[in-house]
Parts: sequence; C-alpha cells; structure tokens
Amino acid sequence: MLEVQDRESAFGPAWLKVALEREIPLTRHLALEVEKADDAQVQLCAPLAPNRNHRGTAFGGSLFSLAVLTGWAWTTRYLAIHDIPADALIQESSIRYLAPARGALEATLEAPAAAAVRKFHRMLERAGRGRIHLPVEVHVARTIVARFEGLFVATLRQE
Amino acid sequence: MLEVQDRESAFGPAWLKVALEREIPLTRHLALEVEKADDAQVQLCAPLAPNRNHRGTAFGGSLFSLAVLTGWAWTTRYLAIHDIPADALIQESSIRYLAPARGALEATLEAPAAAAVRKFHRMLERAGRGRIHLPVEVHVARTIVARFEGLFVATLRQE
Repeated sequence: MLEVQDRESAFGPAWLKVALEREIPLTRHLALEVEKADDAQVQLCAPLAPNRNHRGTAFGGSLFSLAVLTGWAWTTRYLAIHDIPADALIQESSIRYLAPARGALEATLEAPAAAAVRKFHRMLERAGRGRIHLPVEVHVARTIVARFEGLFVATLRQE
Repeated sequence: MLEVQDRESAFGPAWLKVALEREIPLTRHLALEVEKADDAQVQLCAPLAPNRNHRGTAFGGSLFSLAVLTGWAWTTRYLAIHDIPADALIQESSIRYLAPARGALEATLEAPAAAAVRKFHRMLERAGRGRIHLPVEVHVARTIVARFEGLFVATLRQE
C-alpha cells in the first residue's frame, strides 16, 4: 500500500507530460500542459490560440483531443502506478459542446468510483483486457464548454 | 438552378482547403488534404505520420478531428454555394473506433438525403439557425477504422 502511494507521487504532472509528448506527437501542436495528476484528479490545459477556429473560439477537434487525452492520461498513469504492462486506447466516445470556448481550456477528470476501478483492474488481470468509462469536463474559467464521455480499453502487451 | 450548378464546381477541393487552413489553423498540423468536394461526396485525407499515437496507429483525436472537419467542410461548402451568410459549428457528436488505423486516413461524407438538406435550409431561412446530422466514415485502404456522427448547426451572421 505504501509502495503504491509512493508510486502515485512519482507519476505526477511532469512524468505525464513527457509520456504524452512522446507517445502522441500532436499534443505539442495543441500546446498541452498537465496541470494536475494525483489520486483525485487529472487535469490538462491548453491555451486558446493554437486551438482556435474561424470564430475565435476553440475548434471542436481540439476540445475533443484535450478531453480524450485526459482520459488516456488517467488510464496510462493508473497502469504505470500499478506496474501493469498494458496500453490504453479509446474505443468509443461522445462529446457535447455546451458553450463557445473563448479562453484557455481546462479538462478535468475526477477519479472514477473505486468499484469501477477494481472491476477494470480485475478484467485486466483475468482477461488481459479491461474497460472503463471516463467522463471529462472541459471548462473555460467557470463555464463548462464541453462534456465528454469515453470508453477506454487497456490491453496487456504481448511480450 | 444552372447558377447553383456553376457555384458547385467553383467550391471544389482547392477552395475548401484554403477555407479549412484559414479558418482552423490546427488542420495544418494534421497535414490534411481535400480529396473530393462535389455534389455527391466530401472526402478529406491525412497521412499517418503526424497523426500517429504510441502504437504507430492513428491517434483518436486526429481521427475525430478529420471526421468533424469533413462534416464542417460539407456544411461550409453548402452555405457558400447557396450564398448563405452563416457559420457552421459542431454541437454534439459520437465516434466509434473500429480497427487500428495503420496507414493514410480517408474520411468520407456522402451527401445527406435531399429531404434533410431541404429541412436544414428552411430552418436557416425561417429561424436563422439550421441543424443537420452528418455521418462520416474513416477508412484506411479498404478497412473502416472509425464511424462518426455529428450534429452540425449553422447560424446566420449578425451583420
């Protein structure tokens, strides 16, 4: 238990930023930053400028990318903390755009319920493949601009 | 009628590529190309390299962006052909990832049913705001890798 707690602090924002840039090059063009990565939350941010559309608000594809990377970041961090040699991928997702995003973007994922995490972990151990639903909200200051939900799948590496 | 037909050929792939790059700067980083833009289809393509993830397959956010831009392109082209001073935005969407994308991406939107297009056009004229559901399929060679559906909304500019 203590060991997992130590690992949780080791896999913080700096670690996650390196993982994101190495593993998904497009994140550099989104100018993505990792704001928080702890037991309670993963939070990724991006400035408006590289992500804007013709109306001066955020492009829908950038909002989606930021949200899906937040879910990917939670899953990848969980796998690393628990030393599980698996890759995370998005399987399906939906997004609703609720308001124009006229400023810096902040995507937040609250840690999923313990029961859902246990089920995900058990499926991975037993079947080599686990799935988890992860909701992400994107805010600009106090305004929620998009609500995303993704079904992520982690698969043990064949090594 | 003849006039609309002339306009349809004027708003082809070259016009659409300029519009996309001007209005959504991130498209340059996706290395997006417009393959077709005619009455029957809009088709956008992108190479794998700038859009790849840690597994050497396409990043889910790139696939989504390519699909949403295909829907945006159809809508923007329709508005231009019919000389309607409106902007198109995505309101909500869903995407399913069906197979790993290991090569050049090709997103295709077949022209929607005439009745749906008429309804969209009528709503725009009467209420200043029209909505239309647009499905997009993304292929790598013969394999379908993602299925997207988006609800797009066009709003008359306040000028």
